[in-house]
Amino acid sequence: MVAAGAQPGPRRRGRRPGGSDTRGQLLEAARVEFAERGYEGATVRRIADRAGVDAAMVNHWFGGKEALFTASLDIPIDPVELLADILPGDPEKIGERVVERFLTVWDATGGGPLAAMIQSIASHDAAARMMREFIGNVLVGRIVAAVSPDQHELRAGLCGAQVFGMGMVRYVLKFEPLASADHATLVAAVAPSIQRYLTGPLP
Amino acid sequence: MVAAGAQPGPRRRGRRPGGSDTRGQLLEAARVEFAERGYEGATVRRIADRAGVDAAMVNHWFGGKEALFTASLDIPIDPVELLADILPGDPEKIGERVVERFLTVWDATGGGPLAAMIQSIASHDAAARMMREFIGNVLVGRIVAAVSPDQHELRAGLCGAQVFGMGMVRYVLKFEPLASADHATLVAAVAPSIQRYLTGPLP
Repeated sequence: MVAAGAQPGPRRRGRRPGGSDTRGQLLEAARVEFAERGYEGATVRRIADRAGVDAAMVNHWFGGKEALFTASLDIPIDPVELLADILPGDPEKIGERVVERFLTVWDATGGGPLAAMIQSIASHDAAARMMREFIGNVLVGRIVAAVSPDQHELRAGLCGAQVFGMGMVRYVLKFEPLASADHATLVAAVAPSIQRYLTGPLP
Repeated sequence: MVAAGAQPGPRRRGRRPGGSDTRGQLLEAARVEFAERGYEGATVRRIADRAGVDAAMVNHWFGGKEALFTASLDIPIDPVELLADILPGDPEKIGERVVERFLTVWDATGGGPLAAMIQSIASHDAAARMMREFIGNVLVGRIVAAVSPDQHELRAGLCGAQVFGMGMVRYVLKFEPLASADHATLVAAVAPSIQRYLTGPLP
């Protein structure tokens, strides 16, 4: 998986219709647009207008709204690629893939970006709103849409809570031995809970 | 259960050896001492010295170091009373009691104090350190000491992660329907995970 935040070049090769300051202008415009309108209310066209560039530049540099969102928040995830890693395969093992991918993504960056994201969510209603929409409609939303039999929103919240909490304790609180535990240990411990939240019986 | 932060009077009746500004001075001294030395390194005697009062005043106003710590951070928990609510009873149902008490405590305050606590942990290493020690040695630490067969620290981290994440999604991210779900729904959904982390088989 490629970390969107660290990705310097455009996603597609071909003509070069804008320099790297186009990318920077799109990121800045995206920050403003997402903060003002939330993830759902923001549009790629309006972000491009704010940046003074053609809307095709968003696809050129980021591949779409999802990765533009995470890149604008310095979240080291390309959501489309992340979901392509998680969704295929046995639905009864998706809990394992969720934990494994989560740990791989955030271990690579250290806790800094996660702490910054959590701090932002806890400080600003606008940040909480856009993350809520993004997690609910994109990240976890597409996972429950793919594998869960019912109660998609409740399952998404439960799954998100378990993953968020693991990240908080591992990377921010740095509570040992969970903070240094290897992936196999945490997958074995946590994946059954996530699996139950996604596909198991709920009240 | 009494919320320590909101509790205006001393825990014990009798002579009145200090006015309410003694309480305020102790809270202020405690904030400095806990931030400088962590939860474990801080001592009641040094906090009293910093406040210029007798160490007995800590017991008089707070009942002990645990409640002085939470009161100094505006956390609406009296840890001694909270544990007295959770520890007695069937160890195989302690997961239910943990979820129920957590929701009761934080529902009563709204998300503000939890968001402030999370923001502080995510912003300051000193805050992360003292909460890590407090959660590990007092709150969750005493629960695993009472009921868990082995791997106390890993179990404490897993339990803390699940509870923290539920709080984050319910009170800070405000992700529906989890944010408005009644206690019975969340106990039924989340308590089995906490129970497994505390007393079930682990890898």
